[in-house]
Amino acid sequence: MRAICLDQNDVQFHPDFPSPVPLQGEVLIDVIVAGICETDLQLAQGYMGFSGVLGHEFVGLATSGPLTGARVVGEINCNCRNCPRCRSGLGNHCVERTVVGIHQHDGAFADQVAIPQSSLHLVPDTISDDQAVLIEPLAAALQIQQQIELGEVQNAIILGDGRLANLCAQAISQQVENILVVGKHELKLARFRRLGIKTTLLNDMITEKDYDLVVDCTGSVTGLPLALQLVKPRGTIVMKTTVAADHQVALAPVVIDEIRVVGSRCGPFGLAIELLQAGRFDLSGLVTHRFGLEEAEQAFQMAVDPAAFKVVFDVISTSEN
Amino acid sequence: MRAICLDQNDVQFHPDFPSPVPLQGEVLIDVIVAGICETDLQLAQGYMGFSGVLGHEFVGLATSGPLTGARVVGEINCNCRNCPRCRSGLGNHCVERTVVGIHQHDGAFADQVAIPQSSLHLVPDTISDDQAVLIEPLAAALQIQQQIELGEVQNAIILGDGRLANLCAQAISQQVENILVVGKHELKLARFRRLGIKTTLLNDMITEKDYDLVVDCTGSVTGLPLALQLVKPRGTIVMKTTVAADHQVALAPVVIDEIRVVGSRCGPFGLAIELLQAGRFDLSGLVTHRFGLEEAEQAFQMAVDPAAFKVVFDVISTSEN
Repeated sequence: MRAICLDQNDVQFHPDFPSPVPLQGEVLIDVIVAGICETDLQLAQGYMGFSGVLGHEFVGLATSGPLTGARVVGEINCNCRNCPRCRSGLGNHCVERTVVGIHQHDGAFADQVAIPQSSLHLVPDTISDDQAVLIEPLAAALQIQQQIELGEVQNAIILGDGRLANLCAQAISQQVENILVVGKHELKLARFRRLGIKTTLLNDMITEKDYDLVVDCTGSVTGLPLALQLVKPRGTIVMKTTVAADHQVALAPVVIDEIRVVGSRCGPFGLAIELLQAGRFDLSGLVTHRFGLEEAEQAFQMAVDPAAFKVVFDVISTSEN
Repeated sequence: MRAICLDQNDVQFHPDFPSPVPLQGEVLIDVIVAGICETDLQLAQGYMGFSGVLGHEFVGLATSGPLTGARVVGEINCNCRNCPRCRSGLGNHCVERTVVGIHQHDGAFADQVAIPQSSLHLVPDTISDDQAVLIEPLAAALQIQQQIELGEVQNAIILGDGRLANLCAQAISQQVENILVVGKHELKLARFRRLGIKTTLLNDMITEKDYDLVVDCTGSVTGLPLALQLVKPRGTIVMKTTVAADHQVALAPVVIDEIRVVGSRCGPFGLAIELLQAGRFDLSGLVTHRFGLEEAEQAFQMAVDPAAFKVVFDVISTSEN
């Protein structure tokens, strides 16, 4: 099969990669569309030391099991379902877990990917392929409200103007009226304003400790020090993006201002699908560039271009995206 | 009056320092006993850039106002009582605040200190001077349970074997049965075991992500990276000590393990006094070394000696300590 692999920090298209052999409980999925995520870009820079097929945001067709023939999306953490963490409901944190396209599990930038049947979610017909490929990051954005009581938040600031920032801003704005998004790219910020969300360029921002909630979606080590300059005493910083590099940061303000810093990762797929079906999120136009798997190099270049929003691979063609 | 001052990172005894002139609403206190805290040692190394009379843990006699003649302790944050933060109950985080012996407010290593009357608490007769001087750090230890729901904590580990670690361990052990204290000094750890608290030397510790709650009382930049190796996914790290230096730390685990990091500072004096009166804390023998103000140099040297626990200055003599 065709596949895009990471090997020694080198992203390469392979025209004839061995198809995945499903383990017990896994289902072989024919990938329809797969999206490039910030984490893929970090992985390509050495984060997690991953080697293998990249890709963890996808929609595809199940080829076996009870969902055969149906369109599905898959959660990325493949856990053992048996250890103390799994049994206590922390399956996403299973020590033995593999993570699709990130850790010891080949991913979805390929014709086929093997996913545990228990990780699959049916995609309703009302959700398009281009919406479905965003269910994974949308679920991650919705994880914030699982961890933080948003009802107590008077105002929030989102650092970053990228893909995840957009979904986080949409998710938080469902419950918090007063939201500001800070970014470096006027082109990307315009996307937020079209959703009715206020924005500012980083250089124009007033830096005051004035926000109950700061969400760091920068994917950069500069995000946390900035967040500490913006969060109110007793306020909350959500770290939404992982960074491969070490942080060098003065953390005394965390203690002095009694800040709560909350790491936030994968979220509830079921809720994401439900809210998408209910029309609560506007994902239209977020997929801006499409490539074939053969065009891996161009696609990864485009994914770091400020003109791009979501870059996807069309793997098999369906009637509509 | 006599006073111990910090000037350009130099701790000096002054035999004839000007007495403080109370501002409106402040009361002049004759200091009885004052204790050296880890923060004083950090200040002497340049933390906060403080210059002035050191000392924020004290018990003394009020010389004016409704508490005249009574033994009192004082909260360290002197706030404006008028700004939005003060009015919303965040007086300890007032932007205009001075902090006794720490920030723009002369402290209690002196014959007299000026404290806002609203910051004073009466010390009941059943609480000795040596207990009273520990009310400030005890309140800080009790702040943890104001910020974290300890009822949900199955097990906790305290990093550090010093003064604040001891009070935090005692505070947390009131609600959490399974507690371990990690330290570098057998002599200091023995103090915890006498209270029935389990201990381990740092070199003998098994490093596993096994704790619901990790409290960093190390006063060192090594505390947080160690805490991240010990906290369970979705667990909580409380940062209880400030560090003057920058942290260099890989924070990806905060996101991956969805950790909550909570900075914790000053706490409720009223609760500390109430629990001390009720005999819920054993502070006996914690004051190990006593000096006169003239012996500032020896006292500060002793405060970093592992053989010492709490080092205090006897400022005026009373019948008993």
